[in-house]
Amino acid sequence: MSHLSDDELRTLDAHWRAANYLSAGQIYLLANPLLTEPLRPEHIKPRLLGHWGTSPGLTLVYTHLNRVIKARGLDALCVWGPGHGGPAVLAGSWLEGSYGETYPDVSRDAAGMERLFRQFSFPGGVPSHVAPETPGSIHEGGELGYSLAHAYGAAFDNPGLLVACVIGDGEAETGPLAGSWHANKFLDPAHDGAVLPILHLNGYKIANPTVLSRLPESELDDLLRGYGHQPIHVTGDDPAAVHQALAAAMDDALDRIAIMQETAREGGVTERVHWPVIVLRTPKGWTGPAEVDGEPVEGTWRAHQVPLAGVRENPEHLRQLEAWLRSYRPDELFGSDGRPTADVLACVPEGTRRLGANPHANGGLLTRELPLPDLDEFAVPVDKPGTTLHEPTRVLGDLLARVMHDTRLRRDFRIVGPDETASNRLQAVFGASGKAWQAALLPVDEHLERHGRVLEILSEHLCQGWLEGYLLTGRHGLFSCYEAFVHIVDSMVNQHIKWLKTSRELPWRAPIASLNYLLTSHVWRQDHNGFSHQDPGFVDHVLNKSPEVVRVYLPPDANTLLSVADHALRSRDHVNVIVAGKQPCFDWLSLDQARAHCARGAGIWDWAGTESGGAPDVVLACAGDVPTQEVLAAAQLLRRHLPSLAVRVVNVVDMTRLLPREEHPHGMSDFEYDGLFTADRPVIFAYHGYPWLIHRLAYRRTGHAQLHVRGYKESGTTTTPFDMVVRNDLDRFRLVMDVIDRVPGLAVRAAAVRQQMADARTRHHAWIREHGTDLPEIADWTWTA
Amino acid sequence: MSHLSDDELRTLDAHWRAANYLSAGQIYLLANPLLTEPLRPEHIKPRLLGHWGTSPGLTLVYTHLNRVIKARGLDALCVWGPGHGGPAVLAGSWLEGSYGETYPDVSRDAAGMERLFRQFSFPGGVPSHVAPETPGSIHEGGELGYSLAHAYGAAFDNPGLLVACVIGDGEAETGPLAGSWHANKFLDPAHDGAVLPILHLNGYKIANPTVLSRLPESELDDLLRGYGHQPIHVTGDDPAAVHQALAAAMDDALDRIAIMQETAREGGVTERVHWPVIVLRTPKGWTGPAEVDGEPVEGTWRAHQVPLAGVRENPEHLRQLEAWLRSYRPDELFGSDGRPTADVLACVPEGTRRLGANPHANGGLLTRELPLPDLDEFAVPVDKPGTTLHEPTRVLGDLLARVMHDTRLRRDFRIVGPDETASNRLQAVFGASGKAWQAALLPVDEHLERHGRVLEILSEHLCQGWLEGYLLTGRHGLFSCYEAFVHIVDSMVNQHIKWLKTSRELPWRAPIASLNYLLTSHVWRQDHNGFSHQDPGFVDHVLNKSPEVVRVYLPPDANTLLSVADHALRSRDHVNVIVAGKQPCFDWLSLDQARAHCARGAGIWDWAGTESGGAPDVVLACAGDVPTQEVLAAAQLLRRHLPSLAVRVVNVVDMTRLLPREEHPHGMSDFEYDGLFTADRPVIFAYHGYPWLIHRLAYRRTGHAQLHVRGYKESGTTTTPFDMVVRNDLDRFRLVMDVIDRVPGLAVRAAAVRQQMADARTRHHAWIREHGTDLPEIADWTWTA
Repeated sequence: MSHLSDDELRTLDAHWRAANYLSAGQIYLLANPLLTEPLRPEHIKPRLLGHWGTSPGLTLVYTHLNRVIKARGLDALCVWGPGHGGPAVLAGSWLEGSYGETYPDVSRDAAGMERLFRQFSFPGGVPSHVAPETPGSIHEGGELGYSLAHAYGAAFDNPGLLVACVIGDGEAETGPLAGSWHANKFLDPAHDGAVLPILHLNGYKIANPTVLSRLPESELDDLLRGYGHQPIHVTGDDPAAVHQALAAAMDDALDRIAIMQETAREGGVTERVHWPVIVLRTPKGWTGPAEVDGEPVEGTWRAHQVPLAGVRENPEHLRQLEAWLRSYRPDELFGSDGRPTADVLACVPEGTRRLGANPHANGGLLTRELPLPDLDEFAVPVDKPGTTLHEPTRVLGDLLARVMHDTRLRRDFRIVGPDETASNRLQAVFGASGKAWQAALLPVDEHLERHGRVLEILSEHLCQGWLEGYLLTGRHGLFSCYEAFVHIVDSMVNQHIKWLKTSRELPWRAPIASLNYLLTSHVWRQDHNGFSHQDPGFVDHVLNKSPEVVRVYLPPDANTLLSVADHALRSRDHVNVIVAGKQPCFDWLSLDQARAHCARGAGIWDWAGTESGGAPDVVLACAGDVPTQEVLAAAQLLRRHLPSLAVRVVNVVDMTRLLPREEHPHGMSDFEYDGLFTADRPVIFAYHGYPWLIHRLAYRRTGHAQLHVRGYKESGTTTTPFDMVVRNDLDRFRLVMDVIDRVPGLAVRAAAVRQQMADARTRHHAWIREHGTDLPEIADWTWTA
Repeated sequence: MSHLSDDELRTLDAHWRAANYLSAGQIYLLANPLLTEPLRPEHIKPRLLGHWGTSPGLTLVYTHLNRVIKARGLDALCVWGPGHGGPAVLAGSWLEGSYGETYPDVSRDAAGMERLFRQFSFPGGVPSHVAPETPGSIHEGGELGYSLAHAYGAAFDNPGLLVACVIGDGEAETGPLAGSWHANKFLDPAHDGAVLPILHLNGYKIANPTVLSRLPESELDDLLRGYGHQPIHVTGDDPAAVHQALAAAMDDALDRIAIMQETAREGGVTERVHWPVIVLRTPKGWTGPAEVDGEPVEGTWRAHQVPLAGVRENPEHLRQLEAWLRSYRPDELFGSDGRPTADVLACVPEGTRRLGANPHANGGLLTRELPLPDLDEFAVPVDKPGTTLHEPTRVLGDLLARVMHDTRLRRDFRIVGPDETASNRLQAVFGASGKAWQAALLPVDEHLERHGRVLEILSEHLCQGWLEGYLLTGRHGLFSCYEAFVHIVDSMVNQHIKWLKTSRELPWRAPIASLNYLLTSHVWRQDHNGFSHQDPGFVDHVLNKSPEVVRVYLPPDANTLLSVADHALRSRDHVNVIVAGKQPCFDWLSLDQARAHCARGAGIWDWAGTESGGAPDVVLACAGDVPTQEVLAAAQLLRRHLPSLAVRVVNVVDMTRLLPREEHPHGMSDFEYDGLFTADRPVIFAYHGYPWLIHRLAYRRTGHAQLHVRGYKESGTTTTPFDMVVRNDLDRFRLVMDVIDRVPGLAVRAAAVRQQMADARTRHHAWIREHGTDLPEIADWTWTA
């Protein structure tokens, strides 16, 4: 018994053949797109670039998604894991008309088809991968591993959405993808949409078979069941049979999903559900050349990129290409005007239901302003700087709890973190939302909730991928992470920044909420974890990337953190990196002062310095909470021991302010910079991270030769907070010594003071070995002017 | 029927109790280690730091591994995934005596026990995690995700070795760990050792239950079978029953392993085997306080770190701690001199069979010189620079093939890569060794081999983890990777560099072979992959790390690549990053010239410049293959158009030469630097990566204000090689314009030449839009003096 009628089968196959034709055409053809004349070398592109191997599998899924979307009236998008098969997705979009609506010159006719072919992988054209330029995409098809995490991110809090996700068997070998399968324990059938993973086994990567394709089917079945799925297997190389089987599989999967959602939504059942997964096993490079130059190609890794490589020079290759293209019978698929026939378009849905036109895949269209409360309610009172202590992230936690509460009905705000929300002192949010959890519950559990919007799993990759998918589909969020281990997602953030950079250049892509990092449990306070948990280099990493996108903030206390976070949560199309402490930290600025300071991004703290008109003798600059404390303590020591020295204290919140104005939108002019740091006085800069970063930002400045930076220099272990700064020469005593060493004439005059500072360091070393704690004078220190 | 006799049970339990006592003692006690007097506040550490929760599980495994090692005469090591439970592993090592042999002051007696306790997480003491300082360890217990990959790396080519690997259920949630299970498809039962994964489900992370612990056992069983394992489940909270069950499980697993190895080795059977895995389910913080302040602790996440936090101040906590410690009955376990009793030591193996004394875990003891051939055999002939072309990585491939061949019996050299060995043009190695593959084989397969030593899987994490494990156990290797995607392992390389930095400071740790990266398919030649595949920032990333460890090389041609690779493969305790092209590249230097040039690390290429005594008018500097070509082409244009201009060409191979001598062992003195770059002439530096890296390296130099750097500035897409350099202002024409703009007085004199250069760029833009290829004059360019 057939699942599809003959009519359905014929029209689906026509759509698939058309998409395959267009895919191959993009890789090869410069001209003669409809093969109205015999193929000649000059019709062929001079550089043949693209990935054919995965394309016929992607077109097949596009065709069959079209069918079920239309038949069931689904709101659906698809994440194309093997997005290096860009031609397939471009073909699907062009056929349904969404491409021509987005790019009117690539119209759905012969002229548009020629442009579609020519532009592909052509200089000034479109990338060979699925990319921001591709309508309907939220997932770059370059780096592999993140498709399934993106799909889940898109599905969270989108109860009406189906997110299909094609996972290549190459990508399936990556760690992040392997870990992503467990995301189903976090998907709420009541308030979230559905994810339908389609594991596409075409058997090969660039040059090797894939692991999953070489397992016995029963073993793969065990694996997917162990991941919590119900597998549905579709295997074949006969198109008609595969059409029937895949259509049946999709209907089966969608029926099951509908029942599961209904049971949860109407029945109120909260048992974990075992979502379907489709395993689609078809040949790599299916319908392409079976053999080339005597070697098998279809169904092998040789089909990965361009199966016929010598088409311009080799008449036999040219002949094979023509036969291949004509095997799709283009004259049945396109009119002489190049328009697809009614059969080809029979399966295509309408309007925003088309995969290339779904607004969820251009999430900025759906992004609403986040309801952010008045900061005054959350600010800590600061009458005098440096006398009270707060844990900055805990203060932020209260604000985030309010945002979580105020979005409880809209459900468009999430917090993600690798098991660290409470460790990072944000636990107030649990008063407004629990942690998403669909697996078994025990009486001892706290804050776990079937419908929770805090996502915690011990995988930075999943946190990052979920949040990216969530933001790209028009929502808001925050990733709270241990500072050192955000490097785990370096490569993912690279790709997201590239995505945002490109999207900003596309007028049709609406701006999305920024990706906000709260990096805490930072390098200076790894009292019990030590060296392995110390790495402040993520700032360096992101500052290599597009300046339009990247923002880096180091708020020195609770109120500045509030101000910076408020700004980040309102912003669009940025990656905001906020580094802040979770340990008790002195309050330096009132909220009003904090707002003004953060708006400037860097400023003089008059109350901390001793200058009185004219240029100071020395500038003590700082960025980061611990360096700020040490600079303030050093300023106090200088005030006491060298009262006639004119000291200026400068705090930097927004690191990109240090860059020249031409290099970053936040960059300072030289006039501004010199106004803060002077053009000729020694600047002792205490920085949170690797010291040379400051030089890399400021090397063009007039006074750069006078800039002396202290920071983390990979000297760490399990020890006390003050010992950490001493080990890295960032402590108050060392900073005073630096001032004495750098201010002309001071070395002699202040030799005794310098010795006192050196003695204090010696005292520290002796005390800590004996007691294992910081000197009482350090532990009890507070600021006094 | 019991598996263990009463005697065995009693002595095993004694060892376990002793290890638990020592674990808790490390977290809490400063003094009174044997509880010879009632516990008082002053016996307690002022800062309580450490992770109790995982410790009793680790001690249990230590105890039972001791038993089977001794009973079966095994050569074994253990990778402790939850290595943040450092006290447990330190306890095991101290009990067996390997700790006291490594650190004689921490002897196996009362005084040593007091030192063991005091030093733990104490300033100047030892880290709280398993670390390089821990005897028997090859795996830092900080960042999670890599234990199983390290275990496989240790087992490869170690047929006599058993590598046990404890995987925590927190770590099991990470992507890299989830992907690592499939490593069993690459482990050869004939030539490799065995890996015995022990999945330890104690149910909780820092603040949450774990995913795997909350699956029904049948679902977890499916998952592990799907991963290709035979699971053996051990569950309980009654010590005697768990001892019996775990002992039986270990014997069962080891019996199966022995049969599988025998079948492969003696029977010659090459079917894939399904290795056993032990699933050990015991309470978190087992045997610790059941409740604290009215909240359940044992068996919950509250046991994760320090279960009793207020011991110094809170008499009830102090009482509970004393009761907890005495529950192990220390007087039965240790004599009054602090020495463990015979019962405690009954299970402990002898000599190098002890886990803390196995030489595989101090791999440098076993590292042999790699047989490296004479480079002359592999060098390309260069009579005149810039006239012939070679693919540098292909030339290196021939050398690596020889090394692979010459180690065919020793089996101590491996190449790892994510499906890219052939793509990176190293396929000559397949002539000497195939790719390891234990899954199904098909007739179409090429170069797959049951006993192969090339490891390819589409997971940079696994490649990195495998190679680290392999090197740490005394072997050699190379990781060939696409340049952009090595960022996937940024965080792993951080940890390896930290490991090496610390190891170098430990006299008992013998130096191991360096971790060598060949980064190719680099930023400038992503002709078909485009923007997503462009990222040269790994160099920036590693240069933030310890200078003793990090080396970065950018050989500009085939012979320099040979020389650099030869040096890297001979080196010890480094991370060597080599960035080299795989596309045809001009040969600039003969092998002798290359050797001399690489030995200097940076040098003047006289033949390319036009200076003749005295200081040059301008320096054209370059690092990287593509920048070198553009600089040479620019030098040629200057020679033709401005013959009287004295141009010097400097090529930099070793990037760290640019650093000051005080900051890196390879750094140049200012005298050397000025000799190359001058102190006052304009330097136009064409660099492979992000341009500000050069400023970060050279900002202290006298002539820094005259340094002008061109490099990659995130401007990329799918396009031609020359268009890439034009887009990033690194092209020959732009470099000539830079020279004209920077050399005093040249702007007027050379205005016409400057216009010619600008015209050439315009011509390029027009041509490429029309033809999709580079201008013929660019494509056909060769060097002529």
